[in-house]
Amino acid sequence: SQNYRITLLPGDGIGPEIIAVAVDALKVVGKQLNITFNFHQALMGGVAIDATGEPLPPETLEQCLKSDAVLLAAIGGYKWDNLPRHQRPETGLLGLRAGLQLFANLRPATILPHLIDASSLKKEIVEGVDIMVVRELTGGIYFGQPKGIFETETGEKRGVNTMAYTESEIDRIGRVGFETAQKRRGRLCSVDKANVLDVSQLWRDRITLLASEYPDVELSHLYVDNAAMQLVRAPKQFDTIVTGNLFGDILSDAAAMLTGSIGMLPSASLGASGPGVFEPVHGSAPDIAGQDKANPLAQVLSAAMMLRYGLDQPVAADKLENAVLKVLDWGYRTGDIMSEGMKLVGCQQIGEMLLKAL
Amino acid sequence: SQNYRITLLPGDGIGPEIIAVAVDALKVVGKQLNITFNFHQALMGGVAIDATGEPLPPETLEQCLKSDAVLLAAIGGYKWDNLPRHQRPETGLLGLRAGLQLFANLRPATILPHLIDASSLKKEIVEGVDIMVVRELTGGIYFGQPKGIFETETGEKRGVNTMAYTESEIDRIGRVGFETAQKRRGRLCSVDKANVLDVSQLWRDRITLLASEYPDVELSHLYVDNAAMQLVRAPKQFDTIVTGNLFGDILSDAAAMLTGSIGMLPSASLGASGPGVFEPVHGSAPDIAGQDKANPLAQVLSAAMMLRYGLDQPVAADKLENAVLKVLDWGYRTGDIMSEGMKLVGCQQIGEMLLKAL
Ligand SMILES: CC(C)[C@H](C(=O)O)[C@@H](O)C(=O)O
Ligand SMILES: CC(C)[C@H](C(=O)O)[C@@H](O)C(=O)O
Repeated sequence: SQNYRITLLPGDGIGPEIIAVAVDALKVVGKQLNITFNFHQALMGGVAIDATGEPLPPETLEQCLKSDAVLLAAIGGYKWDNLPRHQRPETGLLGLRAGLQLFANLRPATILPHLIDASSLKKEIVEGVDIMVVRELTGGIYFGQPKGIFETETGEKRGVNTMAYTESEIDRIGRVGFETAQKRRGRLCSVDKANVLDVSQLWRDRITLLASEYPDVELSHLYVDNAAMQLVRAPKQFDTIVTGNLFGDILSDAAAMLTGSIGMLPSASLGASGPGVFEPVHGSAPDIAGQDKANPLAQVLSAAMMLRYGLDQPVAADKLENAVLKVLDWGYRTGDIMSEGMKLVGCQQIGEMLLKAL
Repeated sequence: SQNYRITLLPGDGIGPEIIAVAVDALKVVGKQLNITFNFHQALMGGVAIDATGEPLPPETLEQCLKSDAVLLAAIGGYKWDNLPRHQRPETGLLGLRAGLQLFANLRPATILPHLIDASSLKKEIVEGVDIMVVRELTGGIYFGQPKGIFETETGEKRGVNTMAYTESEIDRIGRVGFETAQKRRGRLCSVDKANVLDVSQLWRDRITLLASEYPDVELSHLYVDNAAMQLVRAPKQFDTIVTGNLFGDILSDAAAMLTGSIGMLPSASLGASGPGVFEPVHGSAPDIAGQDKANPLAQVLSAAMMLRYGLDQPVAADKLENAVLKVLDWGYRTGDIMSEGMKLVGCQQIGEMLLKAL
């Protein structure tokens, strides 16, 4: 029997509702496969600010560090939007990424046949889209020094951030990109802005060098502006995309939105060793919090990514994913993915159906 | 009678073919409205590299500086892709922007009813889309110092670029954003990444301050990742977008691709005084160069933007734009925008039809 320590970060808004559904599902799968999950809850985001003044209290980071995986729901909300940046919920998220050295962010954008009509794109354009964006998560312009708002000689202010990557940072995420492509359809597209940026030139040179170690992967390069266009024009051309922190932020969200059902998309953030963080792509949706309207399926699929990438339990991951498909097959939908002829249900009822499907 | 000196930069690939069509159309409109254009051709891009070793020879910049406006076609091609960056065609473009201090790039993304089926998005999502992206063009990470590839203490290389904006740079482009919105539907969306970047925080603060001077404009803010999503999800929500150089590069291309007919989109790059540069959004398409297959309409619409924004000749601009619409009404199409029931023609024949329409 396997025993795992899981830190739960329910966060803000709909976070507590959706994570409850995922925890129930994990417990059932655990029982079936003789896996024991020991859940420990901790504070992050707005709730942490309210309780301690900080979005990521040191106790939370400690908790996370000594667990096998972290399941995060969603953080943020209007209430904390006007605090100074170092006190904002997002700063807690950046702190968690840095603290756990989560340099690789895996963001799948897959479109389920059930939900194809939810896309703003034509059916024939998005049918079968299955993209994995591998985004560097602890470097680039998010963390580069110098940064800040400085005074110039003329007395005016100048805002500064630094986009920087070292060779080893590029190689590290590049390998995750190649290895991810190997497990998928064998095609990797590296995205940069090498026609303008020096940091991108170094990126492109290193990724090109790495390619010789992965002869089974077909590598291509795109400039970020062209990649954004190609995602809109013909998303099926993509298999795996590897890119830096900022470009990955933008492109993974654009790719996610192609599916039209962002309430269904999970993500995984992984380090070299130590626990990963698994969370839905969507936000904390404060406008519908506490109303039993949230879609918990991205959270459940995040738990499945935790099983697959964080705990190496692919059988359990398959079980969870299949249960999600079954609930959709049965026609149950929350409001965000509702369509004609389907049964509109709340967050809790989706949870009950999931347990039935398991 | 008005007299204008126009520098033509035909550039590479399909450039010479499409600019010829625009020049013919300008001559006819000029005759009709008693406007004289004195055209002077100069070298830029790959052709300039081949002739002089430099993508933007000093004579070309001089020519441009002493003209009233610059009409650029397209630059670049496989042939010059592997040169060191300072010798590449794109570097010439960056040099032109810096040399003429073209800090404001206007990039419309409008969808013509004739071409709505070319979009990869559903008709009801893109019908009536009319977005103007105002992109800062001479600052931000494109030009920020320090930049380069440096050696770290451990001996490995580190690529570095700096995203920086001063208050006055932000105010200058911000005003163009507000004034553009005033002339349109009165809504301005400023795009940044203020939840992570200091430079974006300064951007957001300044744009917010400026808003008090434009009470007739409704200002909103979006993070760049969310803006990319919203463009895909519901592009009609946008009127005018103002943003920095890099975000503008990505978002204006994504917005352009929503229309599905990038061969139709013009752009204008403007300075505080001095000549602007007017060019199509599409590239030099070396694969179809010299085959009379190129679509010259974006180039013609760029000439219309030159008349409107560069020479303050709105009547002439309207004439050109209406002629383009008429040619589409008649059913003439180049290959890139061809659809069932339309008449497939080449670049030259589109030019002839344009003259007829004028
Ligand atoms: C909330 C924000 C800091 C974060 C990011 O930009 O990384 C988010 O957009 C994401 O993609 O996880
Ligand atoms: C060619 C390149 C340098 C340029 C840019 O990035 O600005 C292009 O993409 C554009 O948008 O005009």
